[in-house]
Amino acid sequence: MCLTTSFPCVCVTDDSTCAPCRMTKMEEADLSNKTNESGQAANTREPHQDVSSSGVQGRKWGWLLSGILCVNVLILGCALVSANAENSENITTSNLQAFLIFFLLVTSSWIIYYVIFTARTKNAVVYKDGHAGPIWLRGGLVLFGLLSAIMDIFKIVSYVGYIHCDSAIKVAFPVVQLVFIVAQTYFLWVHAKDCVQLQKNFTCCGLMLTLSTNLVLWMTAVTEESLHQTNIPADPTNTTILSGRSLYIYKASYGDSKCQCSHTSCNIFKDAYYYLYPFNIEYSLFASAMAYVMWKNVGRVADGHTHHKVKIQFKDVFLGPVFGVLLVVAGLATFIVYEIEIKKNSHDNSKKDQVMMMHFVMNIVIVTLMSVSTAIGCAIYKVDHRKHVIEKNPTRSLDVGLLTGSSLGQFIISYFTTVATVATGVQGYLNSLSLTWAVLMVIQLGLQNIFIIEGLHREPFHEEHSVTVITNTYLQSSKDLSNLEGSGVNTKQNPEFTANGLHSNMVENRGQMWRRWVLKEVCVFLLLGNIILWIMPSFGARPEFDHETQSTFYSFSMWATIVNIGLPFGIFYRMHSVASLFEVFLNS
Amino acid sequence: MCLTTSFPCVCVTDDSTCAPCRMTKMEEADLSNKTNESGQAANTREPHQDVSSSGVQGRKWGWLLSGILCVNVLILGCALVSANAENSENITTSNLQAFLIFFLLVTSSWIIYYVIFTARTKNAVVYKDGHAGPIWLRGGLVLFGLLSAIMDIFKIVSYVGYIHCDSAIKVAFPVVQLVFIVAQTYFLWVHAKDCVQLQKNFTCCGLMLTLSTNLVLWMTAVTEESLHQTNIPADPTNTTILSGRSLYIYKASYGDSKCQCSHTSCNIFKDAYYYLYPFNIEYSLFASAMAYVMWKNVGRVADGHTHHKVKIQFKDVFLGPVFGVLLVVAGLATFIVYEIEIKKNSHDNSKKDQVMMMHFVMNIVIVTLMSVSTAIGCAIYKVDHRKHVIEKNPTRSLDVGLLTGSSLGQFIISYFTTVATVATGVQGYLNSLSLTWAVLMVIQLGLQNIFIIEGLHREPFHEEHSVTVITNTYLQSSKDLSNLEGSGVNTKQNPEFTANGLHSNMVENRGQMWRRWVLKEVCVFLLLGNIILWIMPSFGARPEFDHETQSTFYSFSMWATIVNIGLPFGIFYRMHSVASLFEVFLNS
Repeated sequence: MCLTTSFPCVCVTDDSTCAPCRMTKMEEADLSNKTNESGQAANTREPHQDVSSSGVQGRKWGWLLSGILCVNVLILGCALVSANAENSENITTSNLQAFLIFFLLVTSSWIIYYVIFTARTKNAVVYKDGHAGPIWLRGGLVLFGLLSAIMDIFKIVSYVGYIHCDSAIKVAFPVVQLVFIVAQTYFLWVHAKDCVQLQKNFTCCGLMLTLSTNLVLWMTAVTEESLHQTNIPADPTNTTILSGRSLYIYKASYGDSKCQCSHTSCNIFKDAYYYLYPFNIEYSLFASAMAYVMWKNVGRVADGHTHHKVKIQFKDVFLGPVFGVLLVVAGLATFIVYEIEIKKNSHDNSKKDQVMMMHFVMNIVIVTLMSVSTAIGCAIYKVDHRKHVIEKNPTRSLDVGLLTGSSLGQFIISYFTTVATVATGVQGYLNSLSLTWAVLMVIQLGLQNIFIIEGLHREPFHEEHSVTVITNTYLQSSKDLSNLEGSGVNTKQNPEFTANGLHSNMVENRGQMWRRWVLKEVCVFLLLGNIILWIMPSFGARPEFDHETQSTFYSFSMWATIVNIGLPFGIFYRMHSVASLFEVFLNS
Repeated sequence: MCLTTSFPCVCVTDDSTCAPCRMTKMEEADLSNKTNESGQAANTREPHQDVSSSGVQGRKWGWLLSGILCVNVLILGCALVSANAENSENITTSNLQAFLIFFLLVTSSWIIYYVIFTARTKNAVVYKDGHAGPIWLRGGLVLFGLLSAIMDIFKIVSYVGYIHCDSAIKVAFPVVQLVFIVAQTYFLWVHAKDCVQLQKNFTCCGLMLTLSTNLVLWMTAVTEESLHQTNIPADPTNTTILSGRSLYIYKASYGDSKCQCSHTSCNIFKDAYYYLYPFNIEYSLFASAMAYVMWKNVGRVADGHTHHKVKIQFKDVFLGPVFGVLLVVAGLATFIVYEIEIKKNSHDNSKKDQVMMMHFVMNIVIVTLMSVSTAIGCAIYKVDHRKHVIEKNPTRSLDVGLLTGSSLGQFIISYFTTVATVATGVQGYLNSLSLTWAVLMVIQLGLQNIFIIEGLHREPFHEEHSVTVITNTYLQSSKDLSNLEGSGVNTKQNPEFTANGLHSNMVENRGQMWRRWVLKEVCVFLLLGNIILWIMPSFGARPEFDHETQSTFYSFSMWATIVNIGLPFGIFYRMHSVASLFEVFLNS
């Protein structure tokens, strides 16, 4: 009978008694950790208690129900946002905001309930996932949360001026959103690592509600921002697109002249809060990602002590930061000139073409340099013999998924540009530049994805650990090994590492040194390159619309749809790459 | 040192020698099977040989490269298909077909190479995944492949008539596609279960090429079919949509009168092959799904003998088939009347409204009956104590993913309909019916997803196996157990099952009997319900366009985009549900 209880340790050779085959508590924990590598296995195993069928079943129902809840809220939100964008007579912004207020209030209530319930219950959170909610993610969340809160305050001040002639919901919405942001930021800061074991079904639903509310907020913000950044031609039947930037349509705000602001500073606040939109968009995505990881961790039995601190050392790197900063400064300078000149010379085509050329050339230089350095980084990985981390880690899987998923946005824009430019025969130098940029962008995205994914899947360099293993006694070393296993080192593959590890390590050390150095330089350079590629579209550069080839080729409405869906993902990709490259840097 | 070699069996209590701790070959295979539950672990472990770092690294690079190859082909294909649909002057159908011919030839060459290489190499395929490519999937593939081949022959015959005045590529394309379909169907029929161990990188890329070629073909077919099924109003600035079905736009075929067919049977073949499009669309999706599973299985070490045959017994079920067939017949009758009357009375609004009402009422009846029976099925699962399968299985994960993913298409259409109807105030009985249908559809989709996912994750009922375990001797029972483990039974959770299994089984048997019976009836009824809901949109019912509320609310172009993207997914969902329900039926 023992056969079935000590899984996965099946000791058929020792048939007298099964006792020696049972694991000690430490090994049991260790093993359950390994079993948890399989997501599904994790969902169905309980700690220190028998797996009760009803428990498993309950969890499954919770996951299914919460998933269906999320899909329904998301698609309903998507329908309302689209209806508001397309037909603002029947579905007004106030209708949409009333819907959002309802979900914000429900989600905030659940968050407050969870925080209070967890604080009052003894041992409410036994297990924590060391990989979830790393400091850069939580730090980013707080930073963007702060900027979003400022945006909401600006909105409140600005909209109060219209309250005498417009719906009060437009003031109520930023107030409720402010409360939500404060509650959610605190909740995620404190509880991001929790592996919830109590009230699992209810928590699943709460987390999915949080996720979907954030995604609906994200959709709303992206749509508002896109409408704000897009120049819609004055006459929709006119096929030649007007290139002026003066035709902003403040659909979401107060573009009509019927309702006048009662205080004088309205316009200042209105201009100011539009610059804070990109941060609010990032905040929603950060919060969604963290809620998703918490949802994946519900009922998971993970070891909370796997996260070992890595010291950030910038002293070894020099070339990467220097060239990177130069790139950022040059990029910023041309970007500012581009923005000013495009706004000033909206009707002077020759002047506009010059500025466009400058912007294209600058972008081509940035993307080329980044591609070359990424190729060097990938080559280093090819000759680097560090092991791959095989431990399952929901946070890292999500990271990789978000990275490749969000890169699709920029991929789509680049390929559509390529097809349009090639099909129209690459006429003029601007089209050649635009084509070059699109092709280089595809190469850069591909290489950077490879580089980051490889970097995230490699083990960090460990010199100290290997020494510890050799010098300690048997039991201690077994303890160390299980610790190493927890921290991502694959001991299974390391029999020769413990045997003659010290020798081979010393021989390899020199080669490792320069590989580490090159990788770090590449990481820092790419990090800064991604920052400038993030800043440009975030703060309003839209060469996709200023240059007319694609919009005449595909029709304006189709091209605007492609860009307005693809670009927010592209911006998020740059943002996310920065964070991932920082992790790769720490790993190297 | 032994600690690290016999993973995951860590025997610290037996410190004299590690030999008893090593597993026999059988257990090793068994264990490696379990370890393979974790997808990532599977990717990095080798059978009967040490995991060499370079091997792991090579595989990772293969996966990365093939993934990037797939994304690039897909997005380039997507850009070309969109450009062709939007701007057929610069990117003609011939351009698009030349691109497709290139990829079809490359993919076919790889397929032929793989088949020959595998046939010539001794022991080329050691491991097979018993879950991959089940008979219904391969059978469906052959059936749809046959119908697609007939479609291609019709196309060739029809297009030969135009060869004197149009590009020869339009004849070459169906010829190449025919060759591709024959090669691919043979390849997937024979090799769908392979866990490729040789030339892994090359095979990864080949499989991803197959996947992306099929998806590009799918996109092309869906676009062509959508343009064919959509009535575009004669005057695009006219906001009242013409309801006539006579305005088909044969963008992809030969709508212009300049080029006349040289033989008389052109039109017959043209009409005929449009009826075969839905099958071609399904063929591409089936082939993509199978190529994806093969790609996931590259380098996987799986046991090929896990698949145990289940006898199909329809003798116990009676109510489900009877009511289901009645539903299908009634649905088919009203669908035929609807199609004929809508075509005949395209300008007679009162007659059209009557037919629309009939179609809406029929659909509401179907969806209501399905919802009720699904709710009964879900309730049975709630009281059913069968264990959940915890074994990882890429085919099942893909099934669930495809099911939930494709249901989003219908979800989106229903929610957009609901928002449009509610926002315009639900005027008239047609709008009430349309709203009721949309809301019921959301409920039905949600319930059906829960029912199918639960059904797929439950263990099959086993009476015979439990008897075998009890009556056999120790060693034999251990063998049986390991077999059971392979076949999806979780022995770990069954200590009481082996101990006093016989007794509890006999007590529970009566309850189990009626639960099985109800589940089977529900499965058959739902299966037939999904068939009729698949037939209607597949063969041209478009109440989304015949009823004008949504298209006037969202603007015609936006609504056409939503329906033309959502509906193919909805059709695939029904198709896929039928297959999944069949599996649930076998499981019950």
